Amino acid sequence: MKALRLTSTSGSKPSLSLSTLPKPSPPPGSVLVKIRAAGINPSDVINAKGGFPYTTFPRTPGRDYAGVVVEGPEEFLGKEVYGTSGKVLSFTTDGTHAEYCVISCDGINLKPSSLSFVQAAAVGVPFTTAALTVRRAMIQSTDRVLILGASGAVGSAACQLARNKACQVLRAARRGSVDVNLTTDPELSTVKSLTEGKGVDVVIDTTGSPALMRAALRILALRGRLVYISAPKEGSTDFTFDMKQLYREEKMIIGCNSLLQTLPEAAKELGGLTPGFEDGSLQAPNESDIETTRIEDAVNVYQMKGNLGNSKKIVISF
Amino acid sequence: MKALRLTSTSGSKPSLSLSTLPKPSPPPGSVLVKIRAAGINPSDVINAKGGFPYTTFPRTPGRDYAGVVVEGPEEFLGKEVYGTSGKVLSFTTDGTHAEYCVISCDGINLKPSSLSFVQAAAVGVPFTTAALTVRRAMIQSTDRVLILGASGAVGSAACQLARNKACQVLRAARRGSVDVNLTTDPELSTVKSLTEGKGVDVVIDTTGSPALMRAALRILALRGRLVYISAPKEGSTDFTFDMKQLYREEKMIIGCNSLLQTLPEAAKELGGLTPGFEDGSLQAPNESDIETTRIEDAVNVYQMKGNLGNSKKIVISF
Repeated sequence: MKALRLTSTSGSKPSLSLSTLPKPSPPPGSVLVKIRAAGINPSDVINAKGGFPYTTFPRTPGRDYAGVVVEGPEEFLGKEVYGTSGKVLSFTTDGTHAEYCVISCDGINLKPSSLSFVQAAAVGVPFTTAALTVRRAMIQSTDRVLILGASGAVGSAACQLARNKACQVLRAARRGSVDVNLTTDPELSTVKSLTEGKGVDVVIDTTGSPALMRAALRILALRGRLVYISAPKEGSTDFTFDMKQLYREEKMIIGCNSLLQTLPEAAKELGGLTPGFEDGSLQAPNESDIETTRIEDAVNVYQMKGNLGNSKKIVISF
Repeated sequence: MKALRLTSTSGSKPSLSLSTLPKPSPPPGSVLVKIRAAGINPSDVINAKGGFPYTTFPRTPGRDYAGVVVEGPEEFLGKEVYGTSGKVLSFTTDGTHAEYCVISCDGINLKPSSLSFVQAAAVGVPFTTAALTVRRAMIQSTDRVLILGASGAVGSAACQLARNKACQVLRAARRGSVDVNLTTDPELSTVKSLTEGKGVDVVIDTTGSPALMRAALRILALRGRLVYISAPKEGSTDFTFDMKQLYREEKMIIGCNSLLQTLPEAAKELGGLTPGFEDGSLQAPNESDIETTRIEDAVNVYQMKGNLGNSKKIVISF
């Protein structure tokens, strides 16, 4: 089968190439999924650059997928499934950027019939990461929620999840039609006027910018919670805040990392979102907003995404 | 009646003196408590120095008390009560360092019969603050908990509350019989060996030392929570941490401030602890560990506590 492959010798940065590997056989308790579509996430690109110290090599990358079960227990055979990975697929077992992938039975979910394979392969990491932030922020229906990086994949999923909890949601991004334009208002001053001076109860920061996080702490209301999912990719990752202000106003700073989840935990998180995709209360990206690539061109796509930063969602389609 | 009194003119630092005031009359929905004992807390001393910008003057200080209801609705008359204050008594209404104090009916609790008036007056702020930290740290029975400043009033109460939740508790203080001696092990290295390298799930920091807090973040286990209740009294209150480490390990930094509670909220917090004092699962300080003072000497005690820092618990006794 065709598969992307990361190789690394004696601790050097890994090298990504298109390889031909034997089709794997699923051990008991697992299924073999014929991959129909597999999303490329920022964490895949970081992994291909050697950014995760726990990745073992050689390794097929890829955390998200949608496909059909072609081997394994009879109850699963022929089923259309989709899924995502926490800390397993693409790090310590082979991932989804291949024609076939072995997944343990407790790591799969039935694909929502409302989503195409390409759409279903685009939602795993973004929506489960967004669900993680919403859960860890302990969001209530009365909360005002500010999403930093709202036009990104995780940010836009978080907007949907917070709105579905009946929260008032403010979207912040560098450009586009948003409530807070981060290019012209990096201090988030707009938030005060948009909330009648009260500030927001929750900030979900998907950007990892210390300057934005400092501004976000300031515009948090009493007992506000700031959750975040990344740190600066280069330079210092130090963050400084005023201890006195944070405790007097009972604020919280909360780290979120979807890469800590086991495969069953990630499947459970995604399974919790499946009814939303089915009934339309959660919207996957439209096909027209997803760019597809053949696996033969995927090495170039990895290279491009690494250089361009936030580009259109790209899914490998078979 | 005799009462301590804080006076301040045009924003100057307040001045504390012993005054004679008319005995107050309780408005509807309130009781008049004949104060039998009233604890002096660090926050009272800070208040007397003008440390809380929202205090209005002139003002009788004092947040904790135990006494007898002498006026008010018949159901309360003659009852022995005790209580504490969040952001009301001693800040915007007159507090407990007086012979009589007006308290709203939803702000009192029946005094546990197992506690003397002096003991009951010593538990309010320390135990409700400790309960707040335990609640906001979301402590579970399986958690390993480290208490920084375990020999202090809040710290020792937090030890009891965490132990009562069946947690493994490590006590850290500058001296005495503790698990971690903060004088000889300011980096908290002992914690690693005491937890077989795993670290602790929760740190309750009552000291407000940035250096200790930095060390505490390092020895927190995966998904660990650090709660804290104070900041340095002098100098910078800036705190710096590594954003990347905090999110990758899903840690949390959580501020706690008992001064945000309304009077009914503070009463509810203390009421939740009352059964524990009654059945002995919570231990108030022994009488022998409490120093009592007459109100005539209390101005000197405020002065002394402000200069000496952590001294013996002192209660004004009438």
